[in-house]
Amino acid sequence: MKKDAVVGIDIGGTFVKYAIIDISANILAEGSIPTDKSDNLDDFLDDLTTTLGDAIRKVSAITDVRGIGVGAPCGNYKNGCIEYAVNLKWTQGKQVPMVELLQKRFSVPVAITNDANAAALGEMIYGKAKDMKDFILITLGTGLGSGLVTNGELLYGHDGFAGEIGHVIARENGRNCACGRRGCLETYVSAPGIVRTVFELLAEYNHPSELRDYSFNGLTSEIIYHAATRNDFIALKAFELTGKLLGIKLADAVAHTSPEAIFLFGGLAKAGEFILKPTRESFNNNVLKNYQGKVAIELSSLPEGNVAVLGASALIWTELNKGKTL
Amino acid sequence: MKKDAVVGIDIGGTFVKYAIIDISANILAEGSIPTDKSDNLDDFLDDLTTTLGDAIRKVSAITDVRGIGVGAPCGNYKNGCIEYAVNLKWTQGKQVPMVELLQKRFSVPVAITNDANAAALGEMIYGKAKDMKDFILITLGTGLGSGLVTNGELLYGHDGFAGEIGHVIARENGRNCACGRRGCLETYVSAPGIVRTVFELLAEYNHPSELRDYSFNGLTSEIIYHAATRNDFIALKAFELTGKLLGIKLADAVAHTSPEAIFLFGGLAKAGEFILKPTRESFNNNVLKNYQGKVAIELSSLPEGNVAVLGASALIWTELNKGKTL
Repeated sequence: MKKDAVVGIDIGGTFVKYAIIDISANILAEGSIPTDKSDNLDDFLDDLTTTLGDAIRKVSAITDVRGIGVGAPCGNYKNGCIEYAVNLKWTQGKQVPMVELLQKRFSVPVAITNDANAAALGEMIYGKAKDMKDFILITLGTGLGSGLVTNGELLYGHDGFAGEIGHVIARENGRNCACGRRGCLETYVSAPGIVRTVFELLAEYNHPSELRDYSFNGLTSEIIYHAATRNDFIALKAFELTGKLLGIKLADAVAHTSPEAIFLFGGLAKAGEFILKPTRESFNNNVLKNYQGKVAIELSSLPEGNVAVLGASALIWTELNKGKTL
Repeated sequence: MKKDAVVGIDIGGTFVKYAIIDISANILAEGSIPTDKSDNLDDFLDDLTTTLGDAIRKVSAITDVRGIGVGAPCGNYKNGCIEYAVNLKWTQGKQVPMVELLQKRFSVPVAITNDANAAALGEMIYGKAKDMKDFILITLGTGLGSGLVTNGELLYGHDGFAGEIGHVIARENGRNCACGRRGCLETYVSAPGIVRTVFELLAEYNHPSELRDYSFNGLTSEIIYHAATRNDFIALKAFELTGKLLGIKLADAVAHTSPEAIFLFGGLAKAGEFILKPTRESFNNNVLKNYQGKVAIELSSLPEGNVAVLGASALIWTELNKGKTL
């Protein structure tokens, strides 16, 4: 009997990556095409169909490909569309019914969600959340994304857009956010968020810091992390403030959905204890007594490089687990 | 064939009310006993068993009582206990396995939850949320309680305590809260919260106000409401600020669970447009664009006087709908 496998597709700003993956997270085949190779939707889909189709044919002797899961910016599980993604040329900022289009071309079940939701499902299918029914996954990258699992299922909400914790208001009239509002959590707690914090701190303090030699465009969360490992005052302070704010807002999140654990993932989470320690401290100082000592805050167990395709593929295992025929 | 009915019990600080209710929210029998008639748990249960037992026997000729739903402060659905309720004498601040105790005495299925969760279920079974799968109910009384329904089910979370939106931090280092922390939303947005706000405003402004004649202990949200109907500057300002803060925090709540509607209920909600209008305005100004125009904010449709027993009874209908044998 053939082994079951699923396809995960991660539509990123630069590359569209795909992988064929079994239930134990083994990657049987993988590859990618440049996201902006074409600005025409049909051409993009033709490219993807050729490349991914070849990969599927190669593994089909030993595996039965049960479906294709897609993780994409603005991917809406409920209607199967990529909704008005401004950073993907071939969407031309319009609604693209990606599930329907891929189903036609591949004749297997297809489902879509956004990248943070996909990562949460990845954690549930392959990672530390295997036996959990209520947890939150936070991605700390270019923005702050979140996937909320409640009662064993990803929380999509009425319109498919539940879990936008990056856009809770952290500071009234605070920093400008790409969403058009001010003070959103992700303007403070994300890779660019900590860069902004460092620039405020450089202005506020006189302490020497190796970060004084960087331009705003030249500074990254990774550089800040390395400065922190060398005890740079500004870098340490930036992680402290970032974790403090994240801890407060995670305490608020817990007051909504009462999870068993919160997993951190993404560029900023790579700083490990520098971000974990102040986050946990602030969380414990700010969380309602009811929840104290009940919620673990940990780094995700998913491998950084493959999380997007793993997460996308997890979408299909999740649907199959629900007993849906798709 | 006998008509189905369920019992709703509302354990309040002053009275324990009960009612026998059919699926159309008709109350077939009702009554109450004083909550603190006894400070001994067994005596309290004996009283309740006698009184409620009589009521059940009287209606049992025409109805089949399918179960007993209990709404109680600190009522935990997951373990069936009242957890360390400090305001109920006969709990003596301890964990009381109320579901087990009532099941033994009445030999019917019993379930328990807290009052805000019960009110949310009441809205879903009998009220405006009948056809909704994702909504939030907010009770604005002595505190700010919340019941979150996601994907057609009440969200209990890992420990049964999901939905404590009254305890998100609205102001860092803000007002003292009964929970021991500072700045919780309910210290601003609740019946006592708006009294506190009025006192701040009386100190800040020189405007004449009829509210200048009240002591802190003498002032209520109802008095503030009546002053607002007479265009009292301080009262109007207090509702404006209260609604503004509520709107911001509801926008945050929506970024967690993406509901179709938010229902307001309780003492402060009786002020109607005085609280609704600034809440909606602030919500629309603060909510992420994704959700704009998608979330209705309305008053609950449940009748004020009976909501607690209706909500508690809804718990049993909900379990029966799930197909649980209980």
